[in-house]
Amino acid sequence: MPEDRLYNFNAGPAALPLSVLEEIQEAFLNFKGSGMSITEVSHRSKWFDDVINDAVVRVKRLLNLDDKFNVLFLQGGASLQFCMVPMNLLPEGQSADYVNTGTWSTKAIKEAQIQGKTIKVVASSEDKNFSYIPKDIAFSPDAAYVHITSNNTIKGTQWLQFPDTGDVPLIADMSSDIFSRSFDASKFGLFYAGAQKNMGPAGVCMVVIREDMLQRIPDGLPTMLKYSTFAAKNSMYNTPPCFAIYTAQLVLKWIEETIGGLDKMADTNRRKAEMLYSFIDSSDFYRCTAAQDSRSLMNVTFRLPSEDLEAAFVQEALANGLGGLKGHRSVGGCRASIYNPTPVEAIEALVAFMKAFQEKNI
Amino acid sequence: MPEDRLYNFNAGPAALPLSVLEEIQEAFLNFKGSGMSITEVSHRSKWFDDVINDAVVRVKRLLNLDDKFNVLFLQGGASLQFCMVPMNLLPEGQSADYVNTGTWSTKAIKEAQIQGKTIKVVASSEDKNFSYIPKDIAFSPDAAYVHITSNNTIKGTQWLQFPDTGDVPLIADMSSDIFSRSFDASKFGLFYAGAQKNMGPAGVCMVVIREDMLQRIPDGLPTMLKYSTFAAKNSMYNTPPCFAIYTAQLVLKWIEETIGGLDKMADTNRRKAEMLYSFIDSSDFYRCTAAQDSRSLMNVTFRLPSEDLEAAFVQEALANGLGGLKGHRSVGGCRASIYNPTPVEAIEALVAFMKAFQEKNI
Repeated sequence: MPEDRLYNFNAGPAALPLSVLEEIQEAFLNFKGSGMSITEVSHRSKWFDDVINDAVVRVKRLLNLDDKFNVLFLQGGASLQFCMVPMNLLPEGQSADYVNTGTWSTKAIKEAQIQGKTIKVVASSEDKNFSYIPKDIAFSPDAAYVHITSNNTIKGTQWLQFPDTGDVPLIADMSSDIFSRSFDASKFGLFYAGAQKNMGPAGVCMVVIREDMLQRIPDGLPTMLKYSTFAAKNSMYNTPPCFAIYTAQLVLKWIEETIGGLDKMADTNRRKAEMLYSFIDSSDFYRCTAAQDSRSLMNVTFRLPSEDLEAAFVQEALANGLGGLKGHRSVGGCRASIYNPTPVEAIEALVAFMKAFQEKNI
Repeated sequence: MPEDRLYNFNAGPAALPLSVLEEIQEAFLNFKGSGMSITEVSHRSKWFDDVINDAVVRVKRLLNLDDKFNVLFLQGGASLQFCMVPMNLLPEGQSADYVNTGTWSTKAIKEAQIQGKTIKVVASSEDKNFSYIPKDIAFSPDAAYVHITSNNTIKGTQWLQFPDTGDVPLIADMSSDIFSRSFDASKFGLFYAGAQKNMGPAGVCMVVIREDMLQRIPDGLPTMLKYSTFAAKNSMYNTPPCFAIYTAQLVLKWIEETIGGLDKMADTNRRKAEMLYSFIDSSDFYRCTAAQDSRSLMNVTFRLPSEDLEAAFVQEALANGLGGLKGHRSVGGCRASIYNPTPVEAIEALVAFMKAFQEKNI
């Protein structure tokens, strides 16, 4: 880590691999001999075609997707997907199941209801402040889909295994753990991820949609709100967010070529999370907020003995080159977001700081 | 112009000021001492607040907007606005007027119709292949709004003066001439602009909306499709496209501080366009496609004696460091897009090349 850089534990926008940032910087005035910045080349050019096509190929290879899946890049973040999913995939007269595991699930549920869609909240962990992932859920066998949030950034919980929904397609908001591990995509009708945590900067949302889902889209939707518009035009019906897609492409390349693929990425992520959780568990000063069996490998949420100590912790950490450790404004406390790009050394530095802070304040 | 850079006549994404690109490059690993890239800082941080607030203040100052106007940054480009404008601002039982001046107006009209909205196309230049801007239009006095496209990138025409619509608010797609000149914003209920031509990179769309328009928004719209969501949260209901907003902020700063404001920007733009049009008019080899009184100062569309010569022209120009001169794939021919960042020297180089090409091929 160069001296003037921070260890960045932001929840999103979040850290990016330093080598990716350096490559962007190096090429910024002249992208691949075009004589233009990547921000200046036409999205209809060979230069940008190569970028977006390479991104799609890498997504398919990393997630082991067969030809039934379309990889799309949209704008509007996961928040627009909360609206587009039921608009496109929940036909009149049918119902969908939703599992509520926190702020983002709650918003997804609300956006389906705003449209007058019929949905059923089949499980919720609201009874314990969303500190766990529900188990043994009775899904509706005739649901149009089951919607889950695979990782909950604010509450620090994660589906460590995806639920068995039988023949009903799963749909997941994977914004905060996409590309952090392998999973069996064949169960999914659609999954989506705002890029700004594990796969790039803010400004692009990846949507992976299975071919049969495209058949459900009702007539008469606005062009920009139909998945089929993006599927038919390789995400370029209109000008796409070129710079964000380019950065995501470089992050995907980094996962494949520098890290060595998703299984190695997952190993590192597990090691990072274990290092942090085992230290917290060994301490009487810090306390995890998520249930043991639901702990997120991406967002480690914890409390200190008092809010004053939490404020001091966040401030002193920053002065020691450890940024972004404040919990989400809706819940308080502390949070270390340790997505793919966060290096092991950042966790080592954080644990060392936490030890020192504890000794000083116990 | 450094030797490895091109004179970029792309229609969008388009040229950016070199000094802006250099500033982004310089700060890319450590934004204002944060120890993070601008792509890594939280949108809830002081660093990003300063960026977006400065962008809003500069937009208001440059366009002389009073407090009745909200400056918003959305995703989805102008194409999403084609849908959001009637969805938010055309109440049931009312009708809106649209003027059709080409491809983008046609799309705006179609997106209103898809939603079952009542609209009236009060004027169109389709009879002459959209080569002119209609005059003496009979607007409907009771229309909810009048929608126009202020500049037509594909056909190379531009509203040099905005129409008088009395008390009916104007709404304009200004994607390709925003910030190229001053105008009286008080006539407008809303105007919008995809950034990727005159004000930044692809991935952000500016929407300026007058306070009274916000009162029209019907209940029950999806959260991400309501202007009021963005107005209430300073464009940060969800994570905004931070890098695109940051780049736009630097372009706005460049217009104010390097160029000296919109009147100076407009002077330069007029000089650039006159240089190019007067050369074309003096030639029997090149021919403008837009009517004399409707010519765009942003997109100069022209033809050569044959399609073979046009193809050779585009190719030889590129070999001479002049890129992006091919006309839109839907109309063919040639086009020089000469937005704000295109320097006078680029036009001089283009005219010199055009002269030489003419002499060789006449």
